[in-house]
Amino acid sequence: MSGIDGMEEPGGDRRAEKRGAVTLVGAGPGDPELLTLKAVKALQSADIILYDDLVSAGVLDFARQEAKRLLVGKKGYGPQVKQAEINALIVSLALQGKHVVRLKGGDPGIFGRAGEEIEACRAAGIPVRVVPGISAAQGAAASLCVSLTHRDHARRLQFVTGHSREGALPDDLDWGAMADPAASTVIYMARATLPGFRAHALAAGLDPATPAVAVLAATRPDEIRLAATIGTLPEKLADLPADRPVLVLLGHAFGALLEQAEPAADRRLSGTG
Amino acid sequence: MSGIDGMEEPGGDRRAEKRGAVTLVGAGPGDPELLTLKAVKALQSADIILYDDLVSAGVLDFARQEAKRLLVGKKGYGPQVKQAEINALIVSLALQGKHVVRLKGGDPGIFGRAGEEIEACRAAGIPVRVVPGISAAQGAAASLCVSLTHRDHARRLQFVTGHSREGALPDDLDWGAMADPAASTVIYMARATLPGFRAHALAAGLDPATPAVAVLAATRPDEIRLAATIGTLPEKLADLPADRPVLVLLGHAFGALLEQAEPAADRRLSGTG
Repeated sequence: MSGIDGMEEPGGDRRAEKRGAVTLVGAGPGDPELLTLKAVKALQSADIILYDDLVSAGVLDFARQEAKRLLVGKKGYGPQVKQAEINALIVSLALQGKHVVRLKGGDPGIFGRAGEEIEACRAAGIPVRVVPGISAAQGAAASLCVSLTHRDHARRLQFVTGHSREGALPDDLDWGAMADPAASTVIYMARATLPGFRAHALAAGLDPATPAVAVLAATRPDEIRLAATIGTLPEKLADLPADRPVLVLLGHAFGALLEQAEPAADRRLSGTG
Repeated sequence: MSGIDGMEEPGGDRRAEKRGAVTLVGAGPGDPELLTLKAVKALQSADIILYDDLVSAGVLDFARQEAKRLLVGKKGYGPQVKQAEINALIVSLALQGKHVVRLKGGDPGIFGRAGEEIEACRAAGIPVRVVPGISAAQGAAASLCVSLTHRDHARRLQFVTGHSREGALPDDLDWGAMADPAASTVIYMARATLPGFRAHALAAGLDPATPAVAVLAATRPDEIRLAATIGTLPEKLADLPADRPVLVLLGHAFGALLEQAEPAADRRLSGTG
């Protein structure tokens, strides 16, 4: 395995050089088995791990025992201020010579604020690298056993977030792109803003009968799925537990899930927790 | 690790029941360390592994020695006919009681034809599950140390393929969505169709100065990156080796790569090796 033996490992020589480094690591959607081998290796070479609310406990079990663990969740804080604090903390720890692992739910490169943390490290002259992770969308699709891009239904796959910089629905989303019947759309953090999303997308021409599946805690033992249409899903979200982000998969590639759920009231697809 | 112990493992009891099963497994972008733990577990319980051209050799090293390995690449074949043959082969092997692992480059759920293989298995009554993988786009972004969705530059991330069912540029792509300055776009299999993509996207209003980075063999030792603009990239692709698919990352989130590449002719970003 030359690919593994030859791998750059910033934590490896930290005692010799006492030079800090930062690794942004994707923790995947929840199931600890969806960590990559590279992510496990990073966890096992970390001095300190700064992790999000979205990282499941089983993922942290892969870290070496000596590593410090620090929850830097954003619940209840203004996201912009808190992110600046996290950036400063990462830089400060690395300047002390630590190998800092910044562990994020999903993939740091997809709505994970990696861009800002990379910039902060670079501005401080700290070596930084990224270990990608399975995104929540990929985890949900695998768990539902569907393709995000079934070639009969989707020529384009798009990910959007229900939260802009200010926490509301982004006002500059391309609504024509959302209305495209040949796209699969995944909406992250969709709970609060899905009614607004629906209103804009339907006004742009989206068919209200387009299949839409909400998934909470994808790939975890307590995963919940709710299949509906975009016309009816927003009201149904009120029945779901409030302590987890809601991911919505939207598009004709997910039509089979709706067919499975509707006639038989399948528990797994219509569960309300 | 209850998540691991409690995991459904279709190959585990194959000797007791002699009931076949199929697992579609994402092999990730190339670096074997970007396999998930779950993918390794599937490889180690497979009786037979059907793998693509895009799967790197190091990934197959994780399979148990007794597993048969069968390359089912599509090079030089009409893709539609060949896919039907692969579907039939998967079903036939599973009906013989084998645990069949269908190993695909990247994530089977993103332009991986998983939808058709899942349908073929279900039609034959064969249990099927999906293990997601790191997509080429995620691998490339991590390797370039950029976010696909830097919040200053991208509210939307979209994946499209340069090859439709017939192998040409899809004619029903939403060109307005491609021209959106607030999107990051990843074009898979972009080599042959990028000039046509550019013509349509510019006609729809895309700024020709939009940063565009071509990546070949992302995360592999022979990775090649070429940073340009969408206005100039298509002609530059001719300088790249012809034996690898070309991935193109397009959008203002990738502007820093262009700045790095242009003044200094950085070898890693302008290599034509």
